[in-house]
Order: sequence, then structure tokens, then C-alpha cells
Amino acid sequence: MELSLFNILDILGTMAFAISGALAAMDRKLDLFGIFIIAFVTAIGGGTIRDALMGNTPVAWMENAAYVYLIGAVTIFAIIFRNKINYLKTSLFLFDTIGLGVFTITGVETGVSNNLDPIISIAIGAMTGTFGGVVRDILCNEIPVIFRREIYATACIVGGLAFVILHKLGVNTDIIYIVTSLTVIAIRLLVVKYKISLPSYHLLQNN
Amino acid sequence: MELSLFNILDILGTMAFAISGALAAMDRKLDLFGIFIIAFVTAIGGGTIRDALMGNTPVAWMENAAYVYLIGAVTIFAIIFRNKINYLKTSLFLFDTIGLGVFTITGVETGVSNNLDPIISIAIGAMTGTFGGVVRDILCNEIPVIFRREIYATACIVGGLAFVILHKLGVNTDIIYIVTSLTVIAIRLLVVKYKISLPSYHLLQNN
Amino acid sequence: MELSLFNILDILGTMAFAISGALAAMDRKLDLFGIFIIAFVTAIGGGTIRDALMGNTPVAWMENAAYVYLIGAVTIFAIIFRNKINYLKTSLFLFDTIGLGVFTITGVETGVSNNLDPIISIAIGAMTGTFGGVVRDILCNEIPVIFRREIYATACIVGGLAFVILHKLGVNTDIIYIVTSLTVIAIRLLVVKYKISLPSYHLLQNN
Repeated sequence: MELSLFNILDILGTMAFAISGALAAMDRKLDLFGIFIIAFVTAIGGGTIRDALMGNTPVAWMENAAYVYLIGAVTIFAIIFRNKINYLKTSLFLFDTIGLGVFTITGVETGVSNNLDPIISIAIGAMTGTFGGVVRDILCNEIPVIFRREIYATACIVGGLAFVILHKLGVNTDIIYIVTSLTVIAIRLLVVKYKISLPSYHLLQNN
Repeated sequence: MELSLFNILDILGTMAFAISGALAAMDRKLDLFGIFIIAFVTAIGGGTIRDALMGNTPVAWMENAAYVYLIGAVTIFAIIFRNKINYLKTSLFLFDTIGLGVFTITGVETGVSNNLDPIISIAIGAMTGTFGGVVRDILCNEIPVIFRREIYATACIVGGLAFVILHKLGVNTDIIYIVTSLTVIAIRLLVVKYKISLPSYHLLQNN
Repeated sequence: MELSLFNILDILGTMAFAISGALAAMDRKLDLFGIFIIAFVTAIGGGTIRDALMGNTPVAWMENAAYVYLIGAVTIFAIIFRNKINYLKTSLFLFDTIGLGVFTITGVETGVSNNLDPIISIAIGAMTGTFGGVVRDILCNEIPVIFRREIYATACIVGGLAFVILHKLGVNTDIIYIVTSLTVIAIRLLVVKYKISLPSYHLLQNN
């Protein structure tokens, strides 16, 4: 099986969200399987709601056990290296941002390749990118990420808009994937970095 | 395209819930796109879960970009006139009630026109009417509306029951829509008004 | 109509979760229909998400009004006998555990009979078993059960694993159902009982 760039991004997003879920669950002192379940739900949440609402059922992870094994492996990795991962302090934030960027773009792509209206495709992208993190935070009794004034949604929508425009201009698909994923990630990172000296205590509290 | 009364009610409910979502999000000081996302989820939540569970996929808003544009326009309206809208103090409550009444009835109608059992149709109506508001409240870390002792669910179920009975009696569909939507809205308004002098501080706290 | 053991377990799980939902809602002093709605969502939540994600739509309860009537009857029963049920203090916990055990197994069975990968079947089982309770707790603003260090998820996964192994070994289906349901229930009960003298105040607070 040959992996397309789309598949690689999907795998990368799954891993990043699985790690962010595992970190959040460890933070809550869940047991082993509890950590796995939160990692799983965070990693597959966005794609699952996208598939369910579009009628692509059974949803992706049900037809490909590789997702479950991948998430299991990543979760074990996160548990073993939790001290090293946490050393970065902002790691949950970083992995969440990577997952957001990548999944937003795979969501937009799904809409575009199903010939849906551009604005619908952007909405599907925003939903795919944010849903896993929202569910993770609701299950962990956190204020959902979407609420932490970090331009979370804005990053998604700008990235989705860039995708739709570049696609209309006929730019090579692989280049679109990379540019727009990085756009979402860069916007969020820059905004948070820029805010560091200001009201960022709000952010640190929750991560 | 000719609009049926069903379409008009659907549009009205979408607008009312979008405004209630935008108001709740502004109350939480979300950024522009955050406000739009909460407005969107509140407005399409009930219909989306109805469609997903019934297998009407892709769900309605994915096939009709008009919903997204309508919600966008209403959100901008709500942002611009936020002071005037809030002047009524109880506006979030009012718009939420209109959305509840209208969406409950479009939900019951969907069940009835799919020849589902009357009690199932009422359940689908209650779900369609309440789901958007519940998701809005969960995302906003509020106690879901369903919990605020305001006979919220009761209004839904009575309206649904009225729909099923009038339908059995062969009453004209348009009349059923109007009578039953107003029934749901009237029950909730009357109950809250009647309670004003009593334990309604409970209500005011949350709105 | 002849009832298979699968149907009987499904009915038992529905009743157990409906009671647990009704008890949680009464605890929150909801009105009559509010109690019914929480009972309903708790009872059908797991099966509904399983069906929606697998594409078995309309989901089960929409095609069989018996579920709604059963949940209604059980809810009325729970309301009438609430004092006697609550006398056991741990009754919410008990009914929740029975529902968990039974629904986990019906979920695994659905995956296995659709020829899905064993690990996917276990994941579907865990999802079917826990989802109703998670939604109940989120609606009731409780910390979801999955979070209360009671080896909740672990019980599910061990039971699911036992199902898959016994199924591979060719054991009679009815025996598998009973053995594995009881495995899930026993694990959770034993763990909680064993913890009684230790940090179980954590548990009692939430139930």
C-alpha cells in the first residue's frame, strides 16, 4: 500500500491528538484503559463526526484496525515518556495544535472532493479539526479549547479559506495540504506566542 | 423556489437559535469566529442529530450552503445590535424559546412523514428542539437548559402530542404547524412568567 | 415473536440504564418529563451512537416504539418506588453496572457479527457500554463515570476481550453472552467492594 500525503497527514493528526488525549487523561490520573479511551476518542472524534454526518458509514476507524493499534502504540509511548513529554510544559498545547492543523485540512479536503460548497467544506474542516479536542475537554471537565481566546476557531477558518482559494487556483494538491496545515498551526502558535507577555495566564492555567 | 410553511419555520428556528448561540458566545467573550461557531452549532445541532440518526445523510446543512450564509448573516446582525438585543435582558431566553417551539414541530413532522410511530415522532421532535440548546450550553459550560426547571421538556412533549393528535384528526398541515409551534412557545413563556414572583432567580442567574 | 438471549440482555440493559438515568435526574430535582428524557437518553445513548457510526439507520429505537414504552414504564416505576430504590444507596451504581455489562457485550456482538476486526469490536463494545452513562453524567453536570477511578473502562475491555476469545474458541453464543456480561459486572463490583475501606469516599460523593 502506498501512502498519499493525505494518508500521512491523517496519521500524523491521529498521533498528535492521541498524545494530547493521553496527556490530558494522565493529568486527571485515569487508569490505563481510561487513558487509552480518552486518547482514542480525541484522535478519532473529528473524523468520526465528519463521517457520520456525511454518511460515510461505518466510520473510518471501524473499517481499519490500524487506527486502533496506532493509537494504542502512541498512548503507550506517551505513558512511558510522560515525564519527558511534560518537560516541555506546553506539549499538550503543541500536539493539540498539530492535530488541529492537520485534521482541519483533511476535513476541508473531504468536503471539496465531494463537490460540496466551499463554505460547507470550510465548516466541515473546522468541525473535523476541533471536535476531538472539544470531546476530550468535555470528558475531562475542562473548558473546551474552543473557548480559550486563542483564536482557535479563527486559525481553522483561515486555513480552510486558504485551502479553498488555492484549490480554485489549481495549485498542486500536496502543496496545498502542506501550506494550509502549516498556516493553521502557525496562526495558533504565533497568536499564543504573541500573547505570552499579556493575558496568557489564562492559557497556562488550562494546559 | 417556493417556500412552504415548513421551510419558513425551519428558517425562523435556525435564525432564533443562531441568535441565542451568538448571545451566549458573546456573553463568554469569544472571538468573532468562536461566536460564529457556537451560533452555527446551536442553529444546526437539532436538525443535524435528527438527520444523522435517521440516516438522512449528508445532513441538511451540508447540502445547502444557504444555512451557513443565513447563520453568518444573523450572527453579524447579533454582534452589531448586541446592545439593543441585550436591552431586553431576557432575549436569549426568548430566542431560545422560539427555536425550541419551531424545531420541535419540524422534528415531529419529520417523524410523522416517515410513518414512524407517534411516540417516536414526539421523541424525535423533543430531540430536534432541545439538542442545539443543550450543545450550546455544554460548550459554554452552562447547566443545560433542560435542567432549569422551566418545563422545557414538558413544553416540547405537549406540543408534539398536540401535533400527533391534530394530524390524526386530519387538520390542515399548515394550521397544525402554527398551532403547535405556538403551543410550545406559549407553555414555556407562561410557565416562566407565572414563576417570576417565585423561584425565578434560578432562571435569571443562568440567562 | 421469540426473544433471543441477545434481545433479553438488550431489554435488561435498557431497563437498568433507564433506572440509573431516572435516579440521576430525580437527584437533580428535574420535572416529570425531564426525568423521562434523561432516562431515555441514558438507556438508548450507547446503542444509538453504535448504530449511527455503523450506518444502521434509522437507529434501533426509531423503528421500535417498544423501547420508548419500556423506558416510560421503567421511569414511572423508578419514580413511584424511588424511596425503596434509594434505600440501597448504591442503587444508581448497581443499575449502571448492569447496564454497562450488558451493553458492552451487545456492542461487541454487533461488531463480531459484522465481521469487524476483534479489536474494533471491543472498541464498539466499550463505546456502547459507556456512552449512555457518559451523556447522562454530562447532562447532569457530573464528572462522567469513566473518570471515577473505578476501573470502569477496564471492566469493559476485559469483558470484550473475553467475548472475542470465547467466540474464536467456538463456545456457544448464549454462554458467551452470560459469562462475559457477568465478567464485566463482577470486575466492577469487586473492584469497588475491594476499595471500600480505602479511597472509596471518592465514589460515594458522586453516586
